[in-house]
Amino acid sequence: MFNDFKIQDEDRPAYIQVKEYLKRLIAKGALQENQKLPSTREMSVLLAVSRNTILAAYSDLEEEGLIYALKGKGSYVAGVHRTSEESQPALQTDWSARVSGYARKAVELDRMKNGIRTPRRSTISFTSIAPDEQLFDLDHVKRAFLDRMALEGHVLLNYGYAKGYKPLIELLMRYMEQKGVELEGKDLLITSGFTEGFDIVLSALHRRHGAVLCENPTHQTAIKNLKLNGFDVTGIEMEHDGIHLGKLKEALMERAYDCAYLVPSYHNPTGIVTSPAKRIALMKLMAEYQIPVIEDGFNEELRYSSSHALPLMSIGGRGNGVVYLGSFSKVLFPGLRVGWVLADKQLIDYLESIKRARSIHTSTIDQAILFQYLHNGHLDKYLKRARFEYKKKYEWTRQCCEKYLPDARLSGDGGLHLFLEFAPGFDTHKLLASCSEQGVVFTPGDMFYTDGSGRNTMRIGFSRVSLEDIEEGLRIIGATARMQGQK
Amino acid sequence: MFNDFKIQDEDRPAYIQVKEYLKRLIAKGALQENQKLPSTREMSVLLAVSRNTILAAYSDLEEEGLIYALKGKGSYVAGVHRTSEESQPALQTDWSARVSGYARKAVELDRMKNGIRTPRRSTISFTSIAPDEQLFDLDHVKRAFLDRMALEGHVLLNYGYAKGYKPLIELLMRYMEQKGVELEGKDLLITSGFTEGFDIVLSALHRRHGAVLCENPTHQTAIKNLKLNGFDVTGIEMEHDGIHLGKLKEALMERAYDCAYLVPSYHNPTGIVTSPAKRIALMKLMAEYQIPVIEDGFNEELRYSSSHALPLMSIGGRGNGVVYLGSFSKVLFPGLRVGWVLADKQLIDYLESIKRARSIHTSTIDQAILFQYLHNGHLDKYLKRARFEYKKKYEWTRQCCEKYLPDARLSGDGGLHLFLEFAPGFDTHKLLASCSEQGVVFTPGDMFYTDGSGRNTMRIGFSRVSLEDIEEGLRIIGATARMQGQK
Repeated sequence: MFNDFKIQDEDRPAYIQVKEYLKRLIAKGALQENQKLPSTREMSVLLAVSRNTILAAYSDLEEEGLIYALKGKGSYVAGVHRTSEESQPALQTDWSARVSGYARKAVELDRMKNGIRTPRRSTISFTSIAPDEQLFDLDHVKRAFLDRMALEGHVLLNYGYAKGYKPLIELLMRYMEQKGVELEGKDLLITSGFTEGFDIVLSALHRRHGAVLCENPTHQTAIKNLKLNGFDVTGIEMEHDGIHLGKLKEALMERAYDCAYLVPSYHNPTGIVTSPAKRIALMKLMAEYQIPVIEDGFNEELRYSSSHALPLMSIGGRGNGVVYLGSFSKVLFPGLRVGWVLADKQLIDYLESIKRARSIHTSTIDQAILFQYLHNGHLDKYLKRARFEYKKKYEWTRQCCEKYLPDARLSGDGGLHLFLEFAPGFDTHKLLASCSEQGVVFTPGDMFYTDGSGRNTMRIGFSRVSLEDIEEGLRIIGATARMQGQK
Repeated sequence: MFNDFKIQDEDRPAYIQVKEYLKRLIAKGALQENQKLPSTREMSVLLAVSRNTILAAYSDLEEEGLIYALKGKGSYVAGVHRTSEESQPALQTDWSARVSGYARKAVELDRMKNGIRTPRRSTISFTSIAPDEQLFDLDHVKRAFLDRMALEGHVLLNYGYAKGYKPLIELLMRYMEQKGVELEGKDLLITSGFTEGFDIVLSALHRRHGAVLCENPTHQTAIKNLKLNGFDVTGIEMEHDGIHLGKLKEALMERAYDCAYLVPSYHNPTGIVTSPAKRIALMKLMAEYQIPVIEDGFNEELRYSSSHALPLMSIGGRGNGVVYLGSFSKVLFPGLRVGWVLADKQLIDYLESIKRARSIHTSTIDQAILFQYLHNGHLDKYLKRARFEYKKKYEWTRQCCEKYLPDARLSGDGGLHLFLEFAPGFDTHKLLASCSEQGVVFTPGDMFYTDGSGRNTMRIGFSRVSLEDIEEGLRIIGATARMQGQK
């Protein structure tokens, strides 16, 4: 015994490694109740560590009640009241028979588990629309953390508020005001990112008609969460400047909906920015049919060229029917899990209680870092650099698509991805299978469709791909598409 | 115009403050489309800032498409396509008619909104069981953050995994192994604290019988989340050494339950540690009736004196029927929103998909800080100091209770609070009303009861109260109790 110990990690205090080793022996029953331990001197020889290390380890174990000392006699293992293996109560559960329909559906709709293969290292992958981490300004993030910790470290590490970290709430309210939002009668809740915000909003909605309108295609996670929350999803075709208003009107006349989920800027996956004129017409239609709108502010900040467009919430003016979901995840750092919901005060009050029930509050450190980073004015500087870099990639990707995939219809006015639509009958799953063998992957578009269509579409995320790889990847995709004899 | 500008904050870049000021004027329509802006020279005089500041602000606004420059003529406001106030589509929603029953219930059961008054600064408050922030070792937390950022800052700030940050998962698995848990067939999911973990587990449970067993009284948030997830809650009376096994058996014979929620160590609110013998008997009963157990590892680490006790999960051995929920929130830093679920592998797979659907993943920075802090061995050192301080307060609180409230039955073997039970008929709400006027508050115990009883009980949280205030507060409570003529 004791011959299988070795220091695992030079960086960790040795006495802790000894203590953990002995704890494991006690827990496993290898050291038994009332068994005498080697003296500290003997043990230091056995484990090849200093005697002080053993002394510190024994002292901690004694304090934790795992061993006891008899004066002049030595240290003994205390009883941990374990039962012998045979007499252990065998509480065996068949979990597959005990899980809810909700849990089953969550697995079934979990794209990360179904069909997404993690690309090999050498693969050119257009599947991600996460930001390029090479752009991250780590020093400003560190500075923001240290500034905040110095000011109120004790506050950051103790409980915060379900509604959010107050300085951040105020800053985001001002931020939204600059986007033309009328704040009167509205309030803001901090969430752990867009997804949590969306899920909380959906859980708060009465399923009177059990149906929600959205663009078709749309954000895959949104479709998933709508379904998980028990809503039927009706997708409305897109045009080059946003949702097809005629088809939207038809749908509205046909049946009643509980709300609409809309992504007016750099729509995922098509990259389309809804035109200012269409935004106004859209809001008029929503007002006419009294359909509350959940507006996804996705990548609103990543504008490269097209003219400024107000959020739907701003167009709605003093009306309280738009729920705005914001996040800097795709623009800044996805690792910081912070998003926000700006909505009618009364609704926020409900959402706050749900947030408290579900996760107490969002990480205060994440919120404090984000606050200080924004407060110091780093977002503006960062965005300038990020826009410059992403715009370069965006334009290059467009050019390469036009060169290598001249037959595919291209959409996308900015953001971190483009969308390609091939002729009807073309199958991007088949294309992916061949490209994947050649070391190039992309996201087939059908997973973004609400109605199973879109097998002739694909999304090209370029944010984390180098300029050379963008060209090489699209060259291969183009050549493969031609070879497959598909048009 | 422009006479209401002033630099709000010397720490923020001035050009950003100017830019935000102008954005607000444009958003509000105070500056209108095609209106000419003062030259940079004029504006610098008007706003009393340097000309370079104005140049930088104008340049950013131009890049964002909010103003445009005409060569040799100056800068003009771009169109933001706002509608006039009269023609704004009035999407007005009656949210109170649109919210779900779930949202209503969340507000109704929200203790923070109902009946909890924030104590005045001078009040002696026994309501909190959050850790004493004066004990926080901020320097180690900063060090942990900087160490991790230096090693892999880019990783921490980009997307992580729904299952959690791998180094932390591995560390916590080893940690649980030292508590005697058999890891074979089990897996671990990181959550944003105990509450999120509990809510996810409940949402994954099929409500076959729609009923859950627990101790009575028990953790108020747990009762809330059980109800919100649609379960009836049956509370079983406590004895001095844990749940009343006889009554538990009676309940089990009477009807079927979907699971049991149990807090074996420093039970909230009673502070009772379930004895080792009772833990074994309890697990045998659960095995006999095939009731899965959700074990709340609450404050297991805050042991001051009583002998070591294995978690129920360890007693269950190779069985897969126990779901263990862990968190260091009350022991270390509640602001770091990190907890974990250790359970059967197959169940964790379901929970992982739900976690992904609800919040993508837990803050990587929180997880990385916690990992590095634990890895550096700071938990052990911190716990030593924390136990020393809390034990002092714990013993002093006991003594003061015995002195000033000799008639109340006391329970609590450690942790951060004690529980007092007065004679039947005694009303701690009435007591609180009088004490509150004298500047002392505590938590009436009935909110922890599943059946509306417990009006003669109260919880005394001592972690954030000074020794003098503990005595003064309990002296006042004792005197008031006698004065009220209650026994």
